[in-house]
Amino acid sequence: MPYQQIITNIYKSIIQEDNAGEAATYIPQLATVNQDAFGVHMSTIGHQEFGIGDRYTKFSIQSISKVLSLCLAYKIWGSEIWKRVGVEPSGSPFNSLVQLESDKGIPRNPFINAGALVICDLLVSEFSNPKEYYLNFIREITNSNNINYNPGIAESEKEVGYRNIAICNFIKSFGNLKNSPDEVLDFYFTMCSLEMTCQELSKTFLFLADDNFRTSTNGRILNMSQAKRINALMQTCGFYDESGEFSFKVGLPGKSGVGGGIIAIFPDKYSIAVWSPKLNKKGNSYRGMRFLEMFTTQTESSIF
Amino acid sequence: MPYQQIITNIYKSIIQEDNAGEAATYIPQLATVNQDAFGVHMSTIGHQEFGIGDRYTKFSIQSISKVLSLCLAYKIWGSEIWKRVGVEPSGSPFNSLVQLESDKGIPRNPFINAGALVICDLLVSEFSNPKEYYLNFIREITNSNNINYNPGIAESEKEVGYRNIAICNFIKSFGNLKNSPDEVLDFYFTMCSLEMTCQELSKTFLFLADDNFRTSTNGRILNMSQAKRINALMQTCGFYDESGEFSFKVGLPGKSGVGGGIIAIFPDKYSIAVWSPKLNKKGNSYRGMRFLEMFTTQTESSIF
Amino acid sequence: MPYQQIITNIYKSIIQEDNAGEAATYIPQLATVNQDAFGVHMSTIGHQEFGIGDRYTKFSIQSISKVLSLCLAYKIWGSEIWKRVGVEPSGSPFNSLVQLESDKGIPRNPFINAGALVICDLLVSEFSNPKEYYLNFIREITNSNNINYNPGIAESEKEVGYRNIAICNFIKSFGNLKNSPDEVLDFYFTMCSLEMTCQELSKTFLFLADDNFRTSTNGRILNMSQAKRINALMQTCGFYDESGEFSFKVGLPGKSGVGGGIIAIFPDKYSIAVWSPKLNKKGNSYRGMRFLEMFTTQTESSIF
Amino acid sequence: MPYQQIITNIYKSIIQEDNAGEAATYIPQLATVNQDAFGVHMSTIGHQEFGIGDRYTKFSIQSISKVLSLCLAYKIWGSEIWKRVGVEPSGSPFNSLVQLESDKGIPRNPFINAGALVICDLLVSEFSNPKEYYLNFIREITNSNNINYNPGIAESEKEVGYRNIAICNFIKSFGNLKNSPDEVLDFYFTMCSLEMTCQELSKTFLFLADDNFRTSTNGRILNMSQAKRINALMQTCGFYDESGEFSFKVGLPGKSGVGGGIIAIFPDKYSIAVWSPKLNKKGNSYRGMRFLEMFTTQTESSIF
Repeated sequence: MPYQQIITNIYKSIIQEDNAGEAATYIPQLATVNQDAFGVHMSTIGHQEFGIGDRYTKFSIQSISKVLSLCLAYKIWGSEIWKRVGVEPSGSPFNSLVQLESDKGIPRNPFINAGALVICDLLVSEFSNPKEYYLNFIREITNSNNINYNPGIAESEKEVGYRNIAICNFIKSFGNLKNSPDEVLDFYFTMCSLEMTCQELSKTFLFLADDNFRTSTNGRILNMSQAKRINALMQTCGFYDESGEFSFKVGLPGKSGVGGGIIAIFPDKYSIAVWSPKLNKKGNSYRGMRFLEMFTTQTESSIF
Repeated sequence: MPYQQIITNIYKSIIQEDNAGEAATYIPQLATVNQDAFGVHMSTIGHQEFGIGDRYTKFSIQSISKVLSLCLAYKIWGSEIWKRVGVEPSGSPFNSLVQLESDKGIPRNPFINAGALVICDLLVSEFSNPKEYYLNFIREITNSNNINYNPGIAESEKEVGYRNIAICNFIKSFGNLKNSPDEVLDFYFTMCSLEMTCQELSKTFLFLADDNFRTSTNGRILNMSQAKRINALMQTCGFYDESGEFSFKVGLPGKSGVGGGIIAIFPDKYSIAVWSPKLNKKGNSYRGMRFLEMFTTQTESSIF
Repeated sequence: MPYQQIITNIYKSIIQEDNAGEAATYIPQLATVNQDAFGVHMSTIGHQEFGIGDRYTKFSIQSISKVLSLCLAYKIWGSEIWKRVGVEPSGSPFNSLVQLESDKGIPRNPFINAGALVICDLLVSEFSNPKEYYLNFIREITNSNNINYNPGIAESEKEVGYRNIAICNFIKSFGNLKNSPDEVLDFYFTMCSLEMTCQELSKTFLFLADDNFRTSTNGRILNMSQAKRINALMQTCGFYDESGEFSFKVGLPGKSGVGGGIIAIFPDKYSIAVWSPKLNKKGNSYRGMRFLEMFTTQTESSIF
Repeated sequence: MPYQQIITNIYKSIIQEDNAGEAATYIPQLATVNQDAFGVHMSTIGHQEFGIGDRYTKFSIQSISKVLSLCLAYKIWGSEIWKRVGVEPSGSPFNSLVQLESDKGIPRNPFINAGALVICDLLVSEFSNPKEYYLNFIREITNSNNINYNPGIAESEKEVGYRNIAICNFIKSFGNLKNSPDEVLDFYFTMCSLEMTCQELSKTFLFLADDNFRTSTNGRILNMSQAKRINALMQTCGFYDESGEFSFKVGLPGKSGVGGGIIAIFPDKYSIAVWSPKLNKKGNSYRGMRFLEMFTTQTESSIF
């Protein structure tokens, strides 16, 4: 059966189910999103696109942005970055401080908040205007100037971001942060406020599936080995303490965000973005997880 | 370059390097193994075999056996087993009791000792003679009657296995063990004492790479979806708190044992077994890890 | 107001209150005790005795016995014992294994189960028949041959004592147990099965209040400095993770047992035993705690 | 032997010993203090004073100030404060964040940093100028206008206080902080910068030993029961994860500070302050601990 038909069938099946879970409400901008929004968009390395639903609606990609900042840092410093952050699954919630204490300020991986803050610190050290540089980096990958931060979301995150402020200062206390916590947090909250549509998201992440991907001006984003390693990291660490479950059920590397987005990569085949704001208990999109599990099963898409 | 040549080249290169790490010495049978032994054997789904070095020497496969007992339990009960054990990476050493306490006796995954003990408990409940049944199960997969337990190793393990006795009784205290800890431990230590050569090991695990694999008498071991899920679990949890590192550097699902063996699976392509007794600090074969990293890089074997 | 009158008044007041809490039921012998039993007995250093209620009924003193085994070990080896067990409050439940892992098998203090097991190990190393020696030691202090173990309780404890078996083997795995876990556990469960009445219990512990206490045949149990240190330990560690609360509300050193007994010491004044089987959420006698809080307040008995 | 002679003898004995330990150097103001300074001052409830050495030199009392802020909060709200902070020993270092996570933002006791921050939050809520109010409170107890904050120390603490900033924001993230972390931290760092001499310190704390203590204008600081409870808390929690050791060896309630000061209370008898900047591994004054252990042994001062 062709991809579009499978996508359509699963979509129709899921929207008839109860939309379980609860949308994030810790900031007003997330709480007011239409909780029944549901979109899917897929981009293949053969330049085909498929999708359905609210796939052209912008949403807050939140933690998904951590993959992109990691790629930027990896591109610049290569393996040097692994001196500052690990590559192991944490076995803990995304915002836990416990491991950070026993590991003396070295975060387990770049996708828990602690690790993403360290990556932000690297970028803050490198660029005079990291927000601008990072945004341009994304725009070039996605080949679109229509991608932007949402300053209201960044501001709201900052106002309630006590846990992240705690994590950032905790890392600083161990000496694994070079810049001031305030500067790093400012970039971090802004980075997480990035908004995309499902279509943009799947196009942005296609370079991790496509070895031949080149941007119009700069060529490769990462070399092949680096891209594979990013995928490996998403596989083991992309869904916090539900990473094993995702790997087990969906069988693809991916990354989720608290805004209800999920990106998944089938290397050498496609990238697929889903978005639905209600989250399961682990903080991953309820419908997004449902969709991807059914989709990879029906299309027999699995790296294993 | 053909597989055999790549294997030979890497092998020759590694044996000229310092053989770092230290062999396990907690039981005499492991301590007296030739620490410089080094073997590699690969089996493809096209029935080709390649290899070099001590690939026909028996060694103690130890924790690698946990994958096989999991497959047996999965075959029998299907998804029911996930009520008793999780599928998440632990972020902790293989023999930690900490998580077990906060998770109320449900082990994080079936590859840490706690999880493997729960799987053993399932098999002890099912079979009047689990040791015999399990051995026959392996022999049928491998198509060889030449595979055996090493009773001396099982006995030695039991004599010093205080940590495992602790774990097993701890699980029992939470109600997640149906049989007596002594019975379960007896099967566990015996199971871990299984001896194989690299050749046998790679042939045994080929069913996880080959969708068309059938045993002579019983047909499929696991259905395709189950086999993929076992691979996913090995990917996220096969190397304890070095799982991310292995996934990152080698890019294949795999499992290691304290005897110095490692098995890795390239789905739809091959299985490869390496053996070298000296272990790195995380308890995984030093030369085995080196070999697999170089081999998957040079052959561009990666699921990502 | 004289002690007896205060005791009587508080007793009468408490028995009119709801008897909250729940008795321990993990072994049948504890589950079948009269849950409304309530006794109090106090012995002063001036050889006066006061009390009320079920003070002449035997009950299982359980963990209170840990203080006596500690005293015996302290008497024999002096400060040497602190190489094997700490003197710090644990901040954790009595049967937690978490700290033991980070502290490499050295229990935080001799009153959590782990610490008591290490003390038992010391006594098992010293005596050919530790059960007999320990019992005679108690009988001599209490000046009574009417004190005995309850073998049925010891047996029942052993049958369900998986957590303690786990702890004991865990300590052994760190090398902080010289004898076999089975031997140590056998002594431990027997020791905890000791039965006393409130009267016997308060008389037994009087030596920790009375500097001039001498047994008929052997003189001092501990020197003054040692006795003070035992009291200090009870103050900081006698009530597991409710030690601070007890210290705060009652203001005396003391020790509780899961059988519903509590002993408290007012140095240079008296020892007082209370018994009531229903336990609060932390595992300490509900009425016992109530009584002691009211009694020390009304008699202005506080070491602070 | 009279107190003065005992003090003199011990002092002379200790200054001939090696001055082990290391002074705190995390801020320049502490690093530049004379590391061999050593003073002792004792005040009895009978208005006698004894002492020796650098007892009239100001030093930074640091965490000792936490007892005084607790007393102020206790005076104002009584037992209400125990809804916001516990009374149990933590079993962890003074600045650990681990327990805070499992306890959902309720600090174990008011003497670890987390607990002291919650007490500061209470005071910030109550007073328009908490710094001024707190200072006047101390001055009244001590009957001296010569007690002051050291703004340079407060400022330096703030500049390197990432761990405390982390703790404070962490508590805020759990909802157990009513004011902004910045405001609370500002008061906290100022409070800890309080400077006193040994003489002033022992006079300040005399109210916890003396039931008849009254200030010139306001009468009692705490009622008798409250004062006893503060002493009980110091006994169980005053020395972080060395509280048991101090209780065990010194036998008195007390509190230490990273500036090298220690205060100890012998209820109904005296308060004694010692100061010597070099700290043992647990962060308590090396010579201070030595002195108090010897002093309480020789004077047979123990609450037990």
